[in-house]
Amino acid sequence: MSLSLRPSAGGPADPALMTLAEAAMAIRAGVLSSREATEACLARIARLQPTINAFIAIEPEAALAGADAADAALARGEEKGLLHGLPLAHKDMFYEEGRVSTCGSKILRDKVATTNSTALARIKAAGTVRLGTLHMVEFAYGPTGHNAHFGAARNPWNTAHVTGGSSSGSGAAVAARLTYGALGSDTGGSIRMPANFCGVTGLKTTVGLVSRYGAMPLSFSLDTIGPLARTVEDCAILLQLMAGHDPLDPTTATAPVPDYLAAAEGRLKGLTIGIPDAFYVDDLDPEVARVLDETIATLKRGGARIVGVSLPDQTKLSGASQVVLNCEASASHKAWLLERPQDYGPQIRSRLENGFAIPAVTYLEALRWRGPALAEHLAAVAEVDAVLAPTAPMPAPTIAETDTDGGPGAEAMIQRITRFTRPVNYLGLPTVSLPCGFTGTGLPIGFQVIGRPFAEATLIRIGAAFQRETDFHEQMPEEA
Amino acid sequence: MSLSLRPSAGGPADPALMTLAEAAMAIRAGVLSSREATEACLARIARLQPTINAFIAIEPEAALAGADAADAALARGEEKGLLHGLPLAHKDMFYEEGRVSTCGSKILRDKVATTNSTALARIKAAGTVRLGTLHMVEFAYGPTGHNAHFGAARNPWNTAHVTGGSSSGSGAAVAARLTYGALGSDTGGSIRMPANFCGVTGLKTTVGLVSRYGAMPLSFSLDTIGPLARTVEDCAILLQLMAGHDPLDPTTATAPVPDYLAAAEGRLKGLTIGIPDAFYVDDLDPEVARVLDETIATLKRGGARIVGVSLPDQTKLSGASQVVLNCEASASHKAWLLERPQDYGPQIRSRLENGFAIPAVTYLEALRWRGPALAEHLAAVAEVDAVLAPTAPMPAPTIAETDTDGGPGAEAMIQRITRFTRPVNYLGLPTVSLPCGFTGTGLPIGFQVIGRPFAEATLIRIGAAFQRETDFHEQMPEEA
Repeated sequence: MSLSLRPSAGGPADPALMTLAEAAMAIRAGVLSSREATEACLARIARLQPTINAFIAIEPEAALAGADAADAALARGEEKGLLHGLPLAHKDMFYEEGRVSTCGSKILRDKVATTNSTALARIKAAGTVRLGTLHMVEFAYGPTGHNAHFGAARNPWNTAHVTGGSSSGSGAAVAARLTYGALGSDTGGSIRMPANFCGVTGLKTTVGLVSRYGAMPLSFSLDTIGPLARTVEDCAILLQLMAGHDPLDPTTATAPVPDYLAAAEGRLKGLTIGIPDAFYVDDLDPEVARVLDETIATLKRGGARIVGVSLPDQTKLSGASQVVLNCEASASHKAWLLERPQDYGPQIRSRLENGFAIPAVTYLEALRWRGPALAEHLAAVAEVDAVLAPTAPMPAPTIAETDTDGGPGAEAMIQRITRFTRPVNYLGLPTVSLPCGFTGTGLPIGFQVIGRPFAEATLIRIGAAFQRETDFHEQMPEEA
Repeated sequence: MSLSLRPSAGGPADPALMTLAEAAMAIRAGVLSSREATEACLARIARLQPTINAFIAIEPEAALAGADAADAALARGEEKGLLHGLPLAHKDMFYEEGRVSTCGSKILRDKVATTNSTALARIKAAGTVRLGTLHMVEFAYGPTGHNAHFGAARNPWNTAHVTGGSSSGSGAAVAARLTYGALGSDTGGSIRMPANFCGVTGLKTTVGLVSRYGAMPLSFSLDTIGPLARTVEDCAILLQLMAGHDPLDPTTATAPVPDYLAAAEGRLKGLTIGIPDAFYVDDLDPEVARVLDETIATLKRGGARIVGVSLPDQTKLSGASQVVLNCEASASHKAWLLERPQDYGPQIRSRLENGFAIPAVTYLEALRWRGPALAEHLAAVAEVDAVLAPTAPMPAPTIAETDTDGGPGAEAMIQRITRFTRPVNYLGLPTVSLPCGFTGTGLPIGFQVIGRPFAEATLIRIGAAFQRETDFHEQMPEEA
């Protein structure tokens, strides 16, 4: 694997503002020390954490010790890997033996992990330094970024607004330049939603591409792990490290992993992108609709062929997705829910309880339809390389308006936010969410590019080409 | 693959009384024609079908035409395979394109199949001739052999008694020497129970060894396909033809298939057989207990080491097995059950309806426990090659006493009969059931040998060695 990067002309004053690719290359080239990069991140974390609450745990001493060790190793000519000395933090659900993973919960608040997440271990093996752990929705079960135990994460673009969830801290910390990238998980939109609301890039992978061993399970049929970062290229680097078969997770595919970094250099010319004629274009916030039109125009100018596509009923996919999620989540949590219901936040408790009312036959019908539904989808998109759609019908709502706890409005609010993300989870498809514009009040708006199974390379090609034509991903919140 | 057989010294007068191995060799050697074998089977079928009701469809003209074609081919030197010209009939749930598979039901009574069962196609590819299709319990959902649409199959040893189910016709037809062997399916005991009650050999395979493509599904987590025949060696021949990966059934294992015919020549010496210290020895009919003791003595005399084993709680395995079966069966049948409930027999309808009341969480718990339960079982049997147990706690009950329809006694009766077969299905293990004695009134009694996953060869070795020491498998019902 070779890392091909545009030369960094001088570089910004604050090393934390570099992209992951730039910082990694700068450290390995010796023009930036791991300590400098780590101190830069820690300084921003110290300054912004009180405002945006993106971290669950910050570990400055350990991080600096790790950075110094990385610098010393490099001085001895020992380069651990592609991300040698690069400081990172991840959603707090990727287990590291001997470390606490709270999973955003009270129940696991002090739980020391006894296994190692394969995805995280593969990133770490490339030489990264641990900054701490990132905020997340309790047990990853919620799309906004609220958390009854750790408080809500707040959107760096406007702290009255949600970050999106469940990878709330990953979205907020990347947007605020507190980490160069972060792992997240996506079961119903949990990578794409915070990427979208926080104006960063998030890649939901195909079910089976990235090992889930040692990561907190929510719904084993739907769970996927992927990166959030500032650019598609940064996501490609993290994905390249993580992807591929893991004997510890028998659900991972054994096929060879494509060269995602090469894909990031590809062009739009020669690609056909489908725009759905319904559902994803219905009932859009006017600013989202405007940005979608602008995005289509940009892709056209870049050389992509744009055509209309008629997708199968997405509402039905969404419903099936939800049945599978609710049943599997409730089954996983049953023992705790019976023993210590009071230790769950009200929203997740209410959702977990609802899962117990679903009959097995309904669950099995939802599971069994997955193959036929995927076949139907693939037939509908046979003529296109990918499908473009908004990630959400609206920009980030406020924390206050989505603070429904377990009340009667909760489920409707969740449905509204995840309307465009859920159907894809049911089909197991890969999807990248990218920043593509802003509202008049300065909130980011994203779109998602949905691909065929294991066609992450195509999404990376489209996304990276789009980011070469645009600068939405380079913009950052004012407070940050 | 080579077929090694003991020389047939002269052979019996009625070719239908030969074993599958003998008849197959005799036809290929030219000492018996396919027409002679087929006419012999058809003559017995015509004579005994009115008494034992083992067939759903008898196809004499087509069978004889097929036999003549096989003989003509052989005369030209064209040998199709190991079973060239051998007449067989199978449980009526293995689809053949263009042919009706009733699955023992009214709903599919005239349903012409549009696919080919891989298991059946592999047997057919060895050159067999089709005699017709065998009786089965409606949709394979029941252990006795009752059928509201086709009437009960009757035990050839005493027609007042059940055959066992759901492969009722397979057990009865093999016992009465109407076919040399027959495919069956086993989801909760459906091969072993009729083999046991009818005094023949039945091999339940490991989940994943034999392709289920084109066979009627009952419970996709538990369904297995296997042979019933007069001897273990005959079962080994049929298994050798069927076993192994099928791209059309992604749940089949890709490992190479062992040489089962070589295994059938193995000896008991060097093998350790475990006798459970509880559950399988509790509340046995006194005649079953006596036969079990005799069987243990025979195995010891043959050179096997016999030791006690303590198995994990089998009742819990049985319960989990039933949850999985009930949920999956009800999910498969939902559409028909809603549209045409009156077309189901009362017992299966009542069982299918019960399946709708089970929550998804209960189903998922049952599924998720499968791995840990198997690990626990394997630890318990670490010191033995196989486990010996009765196939049922009692000999075949009467048709009248088990004719409960959907009434309140049905479930208790089903539980009682399948008490010793169900736990194995949950674990997916292979098991062979063999005749090992008779009651004072002449009803057969069988025992099962339970192996490790994919250790069919060990079971074949034990069973074939036992059958060299005994003649229970050579005895046949008087009426036949």
